[in-house]
Amino acid sequence: MFFWQKDNLMQVDVSLGVTIGGTHTVFGYVDQKGKCLAHSTIPTIAHQPADLFFERLHSNAAALFDTIHEKCKLIGIGVGAPNANYYTGMIENPPNLSWENVNVWAEIRKYYTIPVAITNEANVIALGEMLFGAAQGMKNFIEITLGTGLGSGIVANGELICGADGNAGEIGHTTVDLQGRECSCGRRGCLETYVSAKGICRTVQDLMSHSTEGSDLRSVSPENLTFKMINDAAQRGDRFALEALEYTGTILGIKLADSVAHLSPEAVIFFGSSIAAGDLIFKPAKQSMEEHLFGMFKNKVKLLPSGLSEEVASILGSSALIWSDMKTPAGISTL
Amino acid sequence: MFFWQKDNLMQVDVSLGVTIGGTHTVFGYVDQKGKCLAHSTIPTIAHQPADLFFERLHSNAAALFDTIHEKCKLIGIGVGAPNANYYTGMIENPPNLSWENVNVWAEIRKYYTIPVAITNEANVIALGEMLFGAAQGMKNFIEITLGTGLGSGIVANGELICGADGNAGEIGHTTVDLQGRECSCGRRGCLETYVSAKGICRTVQDLMSHSTEGSDLRSVSPENLTFKMINDAAQRGDRFALEALEYTGTILGIKLADSVAHLSPEAVIFFGSSIAAGDLIFKPAKQSMEEHLFGMFKNKVKLLPSGLSEEVASILGSSALIWSDMKTPAGISTL
Repeated sequence: MFFWQKDNLMQVDVSLGVTIGGTHTVFGYVDQKGKCLAHSTIPTIAHQPADLFFERLHSNAAALFDTIHEKCKLIGIGVGAPNANYYTGMIENPPNLSWENVNVWAEIRKYYTIPVAITNEANVIALGEMLFGAAQGMKNFIEITLGTGLGSGIVANGELICGADGNAGEIGHTTVDLQGRECSCGRRGCLETYVSAKGICRTVQDLMSHSTEGSDLRSVSPENLTFKMINDAAQRGDRFALEALEYTGTILGIKLADSVAHLSPEAVIFFGSSIAAGDLIFKPAKQSMEEHLFGMFKNKVKLLPSGLSEEVASILGSSALIWSDMKTPAGISTL
Repeated sequence: MFFWQKDNLMQVDVSLGVTIGGTHTVFGYVDQKGKCLAHSTIPTIAHQPADLFFERLHSNAAALFDTIHEKCKLIGIGVGAPNANYYTGMIENPPNLSWENVNVWAEIRKYYTIPVAITNEANVIALGEMLFGAAQGMKNFIEITLGTGLGSGIVANGELICGADGNAGEIGHTTVDLQGRECSCGRRGCLETYVSAKGICRTVQDLMSHSTEGSDLRSVSPENLTFKMINDAAQRGDRFALEALEYTGTILGIKLADSVAHLSPEAVIFFGSSIAAGDLIFKPAKQSMEEHLFGMFKNKVKLLPSGLSEEVASILGSSALIWSDMKTPAGISTL
């Protein structure tokens, strides 16, 4: 009896953080201090039905848990996924997946009886930053994920803002120019058509089309052009790459001034592959934001890089859904 | 002893709601259900020092309380004022007042020993709508005050959003057009230079300058032109007035789409003198907002008029600072 008690007392509570992407799904077990005790990856296989995916996820997650189960107690599951709705537990018409609408709570209920919470990828990163990253101690901040598109998560009064329908924080679809670039959402001039990996590629194309100056980037087809090529070219001093990154920062700063006017955040925190451009984007972004800020907000708002370890950032963020003290939506707590 | 107890039990808790304007200050005693038991008005006398104002406010408020004190117990004071900061208790460089920086907590502490809370005018209206008006039962909404300028208050997760510095909710100073109209804030193209009483007057001037068509409004100097004249002219079918109101609604809708993308509110609630234009502004606003909304937000967000009685709206709102369950800032609770 004594040994059982001792053993039990030494167990650490962990939550399972899962982030579902279009090609890969990452998952891992994270304790309340943000330490990831074990993590792994499986292919998502986007064309397969969702129930097969969750079956595979469970068997792989269970196998991984076997490696740490002696010292850990699993207390909840947090899931980040495209178009995941915190209130309903549904993933709704996710881009890059064939799933249409999936009830994640119900799928996970087949295998587990612990609390489950879900939200979209940018929101889980925002929670991860708040609990374990660059936003520790902050009660008001905006997280922006600069990947293929532009995702965002908003924290105000110390809480993630999901809005009336669970979909708040779509800053990537605020408008820069009503007559601007076509967006995959069907509208024109959305922020993410300028400020994102794809947006930066479009800017380089546009700049080159207006000039006769040479550039290595002219040998790459628009289809094959990537943010990494542009960032590498910028390091070599390529004019179009440098100008595109500066333009990106300027547009970002203009729209950040609008976001600050809404929310008065302590900081805007940037995550994602495109932040590799560093000062080439964020110096002009800061300058442009300050130039366009309403007077009372000037020189107050920090622009910061993510404080999460890149390898496990999205796992930490998803697990934070369990560790944060978010109000539990109906039906989520007793699966 | 019996009678004392009986008398005491019949007393109703009230909070004193005060709203300080550039010319007049209104105040009144409001119970927890939003019933205003007594209210009055004093001139603000903007050029006098703040301490004299608060002395006058106290003597007038005390005299008014004498008329109801037998049935009421005063439990707190809520103050709405320009540039009032919820966190610091300060009014900071208020427009239209000579006060520079005033510590409202300290001024009121001279006369009262009950809790005091302050915030700006748009925020108190937002709280008033949530507790007693059109937003009852809503946890996510935006309040927009269309007066001389455009003020706004944001409620998310059931709480007023003040941001990191206490100044969140300045939607009037988001940007419509970087090269647009000069704003009194020193920038260009702010939303309130288009969507506000003053903005509507500027639009009428602009429209008339491009046309030779006749209008009664041509006989009024730009200095003397008012929103009321324009709204009256619109009722008579004046082309410039009608076009200006439609243009105002269109611009409003475009920017509301951005606000919705941030916050996903259940409704946007409109307060202030300019809402008298009704459908002439709000029909095009709704149409324009829906046209520019990101897909997942379409046909979800209501545009609603204020649900507060106009005569005492700002008093109800200010008193709501005490009745709402906002987290108390340090130093506010035990004056």
